[in-house]
Amino acid sequence: MLSKAVVKYIKSLQVKKYRNQHQAFVVEGAKSVLELLQSGFELQHLFVTDAFLREHTALLGKGYTYEVVKEEDLVKAGTFATNNAALAVARMRQLPPLQLSQSDFAIALDDIRDPGNLGTIIRIADWYGIYKVICSETCADFYNPKVISSTMGSFTRVKVYYLDLPAWLQQHTEKYKIYGAALNGDNLHRMQPKPEGILVLGNEAKGIRPEVAAQVNQLIKIPAFGGAESLNVATATAIIVDNFMRNAK
Amino acid sequence: MLSKAVVKYIKSLQVKKYRNQHQAFVVEGAKSVLELLQSGFELQHLFVTDAFLREHTALLGKGYTYEVVKEEDLVKAGTFATNNAALAVARMRQLPPLQLSQSDFAIALDDIRDPGNLGTIIRIADWYGIYKVICSETCADFYNPKVISSTMGSFTRVKVYYLDLPAWLQQHTEKYKIYGAALNGDNLHRMQPKPEGILVLGNEAKGIRPEVAAQVNQLIKIPAFGGAESLNVATATAIIVDNFMRNAK
Repeated sequence: MLSKAVVKYIKSLQVKKYRNQHQAFVVEGAKSVLELLQSGFELQHLFVTDAFLREHTALLGKGYTYEVVKEEDLVKAGTFATNNAALAVARMRQLPPLQLSQSDFAIALDDIRDPGNLGTIIRIADWYGIYKVICSETCADFYNPKVISSTMGSFTRVKVYYLDLPAWLQQHTEKYKIYGAALNGDNLHRMQPKPEGILVLGNEAKGIRPEVAAQVNQLIKIPAFGGAESLNVATATAIIVDNFMRNAK
Repeated sequence: MLSKAVVKYIKSLQVKKYRNQHQAFVVEGAKSVLELLQSGFELQHLFVTDAFLREHTALLGKGYTYEVVKEEDLVKAGTFATNNAALAVARMRQLPPLQLSQSDFAIALDDIRDPGNLGTIIRIADWYGIYKVICSETCADFYNPKVISSTMGSFTRVKVYYLDLPAWLQQHTEKYKIYGAALNGDNLHRMQPKPEGILVLGNEAKGIRPEVAAQVNQLIKIPAFGGAESLNVATATAIIVDNFMRNAK
């Protein structure tokens, strides 16, 4: 059973202020916890159900400290409606300094507010082998439990940086090609873009801010064939990145 | 103000059984209600806030019966956390019989359970001009409020049919090419598929059922370049459909 103090601590980590204060975050569900255990993150707590323990005895036997609890304890402490697997508290890690090389392809996000969208974009980045995601400071927080769970484990591989996006882009606009997704850009299907440079996606409702758009070299649109006015930003990211990656060497 | 009886009625429509009994469903938020008003759906109720009325006076003046209410009334009756716009109750409509022509491109969904995924897929279909989506009977319900809201208005254009998917596919396997998304299929980037036939996407966790896969002519995989094990099913739909549509005439 989880003590009241531990439940209170875990619950506090749903709030960014307390996550930053404790430099810790929560990981829930079988897939995400398994990825966490196989990554370099340091654990503060690991709670598993009997079912999860039986299925992953060998892995958990590799020196992890864990406590067996009931599903109802995991649900009480966490954010999932059901969780018959595991919940961990991990320490945030220090990112290496952000550096781009000439052959890098990075995703930049301007004011992506929805945690599910951010998490899904991180998962897409990981699928396509893009390990640097640069966020404006107003984006959803990487360590938000909903972001972590939507990444389906990709949070262990993709590095997400928060910074002053217009200023950072301005420093890179000469050396790197900067693409921006927009409804009035060049037709993606008529381009053969190489996966190099920086691809900027903008806010769910408003798109890319003018001060960010000012740093973009080429606007791209996904050609529309029907009646929808727009696509979800994670959907758009996936389509554009896939079009770039089909030209990867 | 909304009467208790009306709130109770609207709330009952969150449940499929009552939606079917009353042949009615709920539409929430500015974008979705605006699309509804410009579609052929028959309205049972239309509640708008003062703000929405002021912004759309001309449209609402075209003979709609509506009632002005407060945001808190819309939130109380509906499923949104905030809604300073509108909420409507519309009557379900009869679909025309499902018929494919040789040049049609349709999406078939096998056991897509998550309403957000189904709604997002409908929005993607609408973007690419695909107006027939065929669902196995175990898919999320089209009229679920979360499906409706995730389509961002595309529910007014895309026709979604529910049927016995393996049996239906079996009837079409000779005349139409049937593609299926899978992690072990042919590399999508090495194909130049024309947007004709039927594209099948499977359950979020388990993929396409064997009895459905048995009707598929060609399995397709989205090439992976990184560490993620899979993509969200709506993301995968978008990427595959985009690859087909780049070869549209």
